[in-house]
Amino acid sequence: MNDFTYINPTKIEFGKDKENNIGEYLATSGIKKVLFLYGTGSIKKSGLYERVINSLNKNNIEFVELAGVVSNPLLGKVKEGILLSRKHGVEAILGVGGGSVVDSAKAIAAGVAYDGDVWDFFINKAQIAKALPVFTIMTLSAAASEMNGNSVVMNENTQQKYSIASVLLNPVISVINPELMKTVGSDYLAYSAVDIIAHSIEVYFTATTHPAFNSRIVESIIKTVMETTEVLLKNPDDYDARAEFAWVAIQALNGLTPAGTAGGSFPNHLIEHSLSALYNVAHGAGLSIVIPAWMKWYKDKNSAQFQRFSREIFNSSNVDEGIEKLEAWFAKIGSPVSLEDANIPRSAISALASNAYETAKVWGMSEMYTQETIEEILQKA
Amino acid sequence: MNDFTYINPTKIEFGKDKENNIGEYLATSGIKKVLFLYGTGSIKKSGLYERVINSLNKNNIEFVELAGVVSNPLLGKVKEGILLSRKHGVEAILGVGGGSVVDSAKAIAAGVAYDGDVWDFFINKAQIAKALPVFTIMTLSAAASEMNGNSVVMNENTQQKYSIASVLLNPVISVINPELMKTVGSDYLAYSAVDIIAHSIEVYFTATTHPAFNSRIVESIIKTVMETTEVLLKNPDDYDARAEFAWVAIQALNGLTPAGTAGGSFPNHLIEHSLSALYNVAHGAGLSIVIPAWMKWYKDKNSAQFQRFSREIFNSSNVDEGIEKLEAWFAKIGSPVSLEDANIPRSAISALASNAYETAKVWGMSEMYTQETIEEILQKA
Repeated sequence: MNDFTYINPTKIEFGKDKENNIGEYLATSGIKKVLFLYGTGSIKKSGLYERVINSLNKNNIEFVELAGVVSNPLLGKVKEGILLSRKHGVEAILGVGGGSVVDSAKAIAAGVAYDGDVWDFFINKAQIAKALPVFTIMTLSAAASEMNGNSVVMNENTQQKYSIASVLLNPVISVINPELMKTVGSDYLAYSAVDIIAHSIEVYFTATTHPAFNSRIVESIIKTVMETTEVLLKNPDDYDARAEFAWVAIQALNGLTPAGTAGGSFPNHLIEHSLSALYNVAHGAGLSIVIPAWMKWYKDKNSAQFQRFSREIFNSSNVDEGIEKLEAWFAKIGSPVSLEDANIPRSAISALASNAYETAKVWGMSEMYTQETIEEILQKA
Repeated sequence: MNDFTYINPTKIEFGKDKENNIGEYLATSGIKKVLFLYGTGSIKKSGLYERVINSLNKNNIEFVELAGVVSNPLLGKVKEGILLSRKHGVEAILGVGGGSVVDSAKAIAAGVAYDGDVWDFFINKAQIAKALPVFTIMTLSAAASEMNGNSVVMNENTQQKYSIASVLLNPVISVINPELMKTVGSDYLAYSAVDIIAHSIEVYFTATTHPAFNSRIVESIIKTVMETTEVLLKNPDDYDARAEFAWVAIQALNGLTPAGTAGGSFPNHLIEHSLSALYNVAHGAGLSIVIPAWMKWYKDKNSAQFQRFSREIFNSSNVDEGIEKLEAWFAKIGSPVSLEDANIPRSAISALASNAYETAKVWGMSEMYTQETIEEILQKA
């Protein structure tokens, strides 16, 4: 078991109607003025927008609104948020939406407190030394951004989809009301399920040490995601399934699963980011294309763990069968499993690999993931 | 899945030699003067005492020493610590030892910041509103006190072993170096294993809702404890087993396993506290006596979960066999499984039940756990 430091100070307020307390949570945290950040308007249709405003008003929390965060969130919107936050002197960022909104909220929180260009953090040109506090109300479960310090943002000028991580960006309080998530369509439910599984298996397969407990936690997450996804595709109103799905999404990427492992990395995310950067496919949809291809390419590099995966998840003694069954499950829930499924031409492989290789250099993974290797993996997709 | 609030701000510094950084951790946290609390001297024999002092001196941390915390820690020592802390104006409590030391450190931290009698918190006469920060270096894994806000203290005048809980008592930083734990004898290793299993199964069996993920986490903890205990009884120097044991001990009682469950309680701890209060048996030793007796009494009240336990842990479709195998495993690792094993006369059952019933009233469990019921359970022990 490897040495590690674990800290996750985010407070989770989980349950029905808890979004109505957001003003109180902010007031109790000493916040008087926030940037209220959200997406493309679904929170207005659902009535959530009004409930948030009511709670803020009731608790005398001033707010400045910024709408229009899109999935694969854009650096331009982040910069807009930074300028707006500075102009109005907000004390915190309140992100209401899915992972894209929260990731943007974090990037704004870091950017407001930094004199230079916020993109400096993403290209390792600067380290985050302080940030405004972030609060969230989640409408989609997948990224676990609600309980970690990660943020992934797309630079629309350079087509780079890069990430930052700092405990300073961990939300202070995240509100998880599973009922807010029941309007998510079956396509995004499937993409979310893939994303959660991806978060779990990256380190599970790539780490050079595998404490049994970590493997068991990952398998617990995967089994729970698969079970609850199947329930929700049949009955989107099943509250308990929705709630468990939301909670394991968080556990998959809040620091628990890798603690004590060594040498893990995120190759599937590395490659996927090029798909969403160049073809704007949903992150989860890109992952279900990449994962089976990557698994076929990687399986012999850690055969013990692939055997374990096949046995524990699919009750199979055959590694290839485990991979096939995961791919079949992705297809069954409606997530693409080939470039063709996502209308990405095979002629794009070289450009995708080139984009991903640039990320590999930033992530320190370019030794294993050369352009040629990434092309080889994508050929299997 | 039930509504819940989850927060656990403790930072875990896990790994070899990390105790040598304690002075730095304190300095970085803005602390200049601490109460250095420890047990009955084993840290002097091991050399840990000197390493702590060296690190404190190197970082210009002033300290006042208080030794002599015993297992089943006493209120008198807590009060001594409060007076000493006030006299010297310490800014934090540094507990170096096992759960008893850390529990005492927390009670001191709460007591220093309170004008009344610290015991008020234990009998629900007062609520903890503030506390000094607590830091720990662990030499024994079992209580998970290193990553929660709980403290159990024994009032030697009233023979009450009661507890408090507040996130204000969560250690700011806990140092877990598994190497510091390898001198623990096989008896206390066994008691610790029992304690960890007890922490996991209390809510697992007693909750009225059982999200599958929570059950899976508990089963992951139990399997890992059983595996690593058996490795360590054969080879106390196995670092990885020691480390996994230490980490799952924390996971068993840091708030993760009950999150989202409803109606769970701690009946085995309730009853055990009377054994350690009246007969000073080690907490884990008391638990291995109580648990099989309680399981035999309780099994029909939640038969689905008992079936799950037998199947997942012992690969058995028979509930009674699951209980028998757990009892046999406790005996196999050297923990007592009957009152006789711990030299507690059967004539004491009435007095034990009376003591436990008083705790049941404080814990709000006296409706189900009447004196007669507790006697009935103890008769099975």
